[in-house]
Amino acid sequence: MKNFPSSISRMIDAFASLPGIGEKTATRLVFYLIRSPGNVSRELGEAAQNLKEGLKLCEKCRNITMENICGVCEDSNRDASQICVVEEALDVLAFEKAGIWRGVYHVLNGVLNPLDGIGPESLTITDLVRRVEGGGVEEIILAMNPSVEGEATAMYLTKQLQAGSFPKIKITRLARGLPTGSELSYADEVTLGAALKGRREF
Amino acid sequence: MKNFPSSISRMIDAFASLPGIGEKTATRLVFYLIRSPGNVSRELGEAAQNLKEGLKLCEKCRNITMENICGVCEDSNRDASQICVVEEALDVLAFEKAGIWRGVYHVLNGVLNPLDGIGPESLTITDLVRRVEGGGVEEIILAMNPSVEGEATAMYLTKQLQAGSFPKIKITRLARGLPTGSELSYADEVTLGAALKGRREF
Repeated sequence: MKNFPSSISRMIDAFASLPGIGEKTATRLVFYLIRSPGNVSRELGEAAQNLKEGLKLCEKCRNITMENICGVCEDSNRDASQICVVEEALDVLAFEKAGIWRGVYHVLNGVLNPLDGIGPESLTITDLVRRVEGGGVEEIILAMNPSVEGEATAMYLTKQLQAGSFPKIKITRLARGLPTGSELSYADEVTLGAALKGRREF
Repeated sequence: MKNFPSSISRMIDAFASLPGIGEKTATRLVFYLIRSPGNVSRELGEAAQNLKEGLKLCEKCRNITMENICGVCEDSNRDASQICVVEEALDVLAFEKAGIWRGVYHVLNGVLNPLDGIGPESLTITDLVRRVEGGGVEEIILAMNPSVEGEATAMYLTKQLQAGSFPKIKITRLARGLPTGSELSYADEVTLGAALKGRREF
């Protein structure tokens, strides 16, 4: 459109650069902001500009925090002998929201992905090994996403942890199977195979 | 999650206040921004803060613009005798992208919706009547959305325009029928009825 205000195109581009937001959705969002009172777009703007301010990575588990040590690591009620290794901070949030894990975490900051140039040195694997070397760790749960990269990372981690001299550490992974509420007839072959293989006594 | 950084929650809330973005999507977007280089969130922030700066409504058609008169109204190649009346600026964009309209527009700034307290005085109806009174207008296309409110607004506008003393103005509306690429068997009854009623010789 001729002479279309540049501030609008700029905002559309900014929204459209986010994952899962196409140009059409971005345009709708921008026109929603224009129709809304000025404080809505101002608040969005300020929040985005201040987002990264003061954010740090926890010295222990590499989770995102505003202190040196994150809330989970600092909580004396959490069982520090059990470490749940996840790909990213978002996964910690998923566990914490579910309120089902009383151990601590370790955030890998990604998965191995040679095609994207992400090798072991890009991840916080050394930090994890150091934590384990520090002693007191009894179990490590490898809670990567059930993807090819997640699998490869889990295998690499297992090797690294077994290569060290920590004989008593149990290395486990999350169960595979049918998600609750799903329909068996819609499950893919791999999921169904895993559910069958991992069947348990009733 | 205990001690979850406030700048993150704030950004999640800002995203989640937008239409069509739930808390889960908002959270994903925020963690995407955190993982991205700092300039991505900064750009989003600046774009949002500057979005409304300098935006005006065109003095003629009430479209969003940065000048007093919008690009369409100022374009001498456009046929000012044909006015396409739309609900909002986003609709102008849809027409302009399609590149199928050589007349001008009038942006109503909404539709009549008594339940939400939106009466004729909230819309730019008086501006439209004044444009028509100014002379030179031959056709008015009522291009509201095919919704109950859109219909009611079109009927109200027709009455207003016929009540004035502009005998030669043609008032039309967009055709109803099957959208291109759709499947007849999926069409709802009203659409199918409209398609049948509006059938044309081949």
